[in-house]
Amino acid sequence: MNQQSLDEIVKDVITQLHNNNEGSSSGIPIGVSARHCHLDKIALERLFGEGYELTKKANLGQPGQFASNETVTIVGPKGSIEKVRILGPLRKSSQVEVSQTDAFKLGLKPPIRDSGNLSNSSPITIVGPKGSIFLHEGLIIAQAHIHMSPENAEHYGVQNGEHVRVKVGNERRPIQFEKVLIRVSKKYKLEMHIDTDEANAGIVKTGNYGELLKAGSSYD
Amino acid sequence: MNQQSLDEIVKDVITQLHNNNEGSSSGIPIGVSARHCHLDKIALERLFGEGYELTKKANLGQPGQFASNETVTIVGPKGSIEKVRILGPLRKSSQVEVSQTDAFKLGLKPPIRDSGNLSNSSPITIVGPKGSIFLHEGLIIAQAHIHMSPENAEHYGVQNGEHVRVKVGNERRPIQFEKVLIRVSKKYKLEMHIDTDEANAGIVKTGNYGELLKAGSSYD
Repeated sequence: MNQQSLDEIVKDVITQLHNNNEGSSSGIPIGVSARHCHLDKIALERLFGEGYELTKKANLGQPGQFASNETVTIVGPKGSIEKVRILGPLRKSSQVEVSQTDAFKLGLKPPIRDSGNLSNSSPITIVGPKGSIFLHEGLIIAQAHIHMSPENAEHYGVQNGEHVRVKVGNERRPIQFEKVLIRVSKKYKLEMHIDTDEANAGIVKTGNYGELLKAGSSYD
Repeated sequence: MNQQSLDEIVKDVITQLHNNNEGSSSGIPIGVSARHCHLDKIALERLFGEGYELTKKANLGQPGQFASNETVTIVGPKGSIEKVRILGPLRKSSQVEVSQTDAFKLGLKPPIRDSGNLSNSSPITIVGPKGSIFLHEGLIIAQAHIHMSPENAEHYGVQNGEHVRVKVGNERRPIQFEKVLIRVSKKYKLEMHIDTDEANAGIVKTGNYGELLKAGSSYD
């Protein structure tokens, strides 16, 4: 431990305290989403066997959502990625969310999309312990977004479907995400979701806070 | 090809044209740096054999700098990464530059540093065809930076060592890097270097352009 690294640690601690203070007023808590997949009932049974049900490993930030103990392998024309976690509960359509880094490894060019918007997304093969499936579309890179309640939306003066800018101000790699989608629902808890590329570009971890800057980019 | 993907392509083309137009006046051409290493003479000979010399594969953006045909494997406590390219010419000290994504895979916590500033950076093992070396320090995550000539610096009204903000405005994932280091030298050609995490967070490719916004972040 020398002076230089001590300085870096102190700066981070100060930034973190600053972030934590913001959390109670205007800060948006951030959750970093690793690659994951959502399955429908047919897909789950094809991959894990008839009558199979997901088992909960941990609750996620949004009420009712959970990480399951089950994982799959996803495969593209140039490579595969193992241990991709399945999130529950089951959905009406299967989808896989990866980062751009993952997409290069798979050899695929998924679009950046809001979750559930799968029309003309990339094809992907999913392999489980009891079988595999090929989705003609279903692979996306998730667009950065903020889940919030109607009360939160009123507080921030934003509406469902709007794009906002969010600044994440850590000392080492401060960054602004300029096209962050607002998603409002009574069932949502205030939380911004970014993927691992976005997190690593800003050295952001789950539990850090972002600052919502209402004025969107010129591309809004 | 349907309407939605056509729209996305058209938007990208328009953005690219916009970027290209900026290039001649205020735009900064961007080069995405994949993980790479620089070696000193002793390290090169330990890894590749006595008297070995790097062979040029391609010139890089900065005058005199080149990608060599030679690659090494880098190894940390949690994993290794193969085919890490060596950049030439040789330097006075060996160093390895990776992304945060790579750092997680290696199981190491390199600091974000300007190239050559290696004091208390992370240890790293480098393996070549004829031997391996262990650097007690030498692994960093490169800080985003802009190489420029004194004339460029005057044009933009910035000085060596200053931090600026840079906006990269592609339609899909517009982003602002808020702490970009200015590096001025007569031997430099105007070029901004970011790593693969930063590039993927903004879906930025080599040849895209960034907009220099002089007003730095509140952390300057």
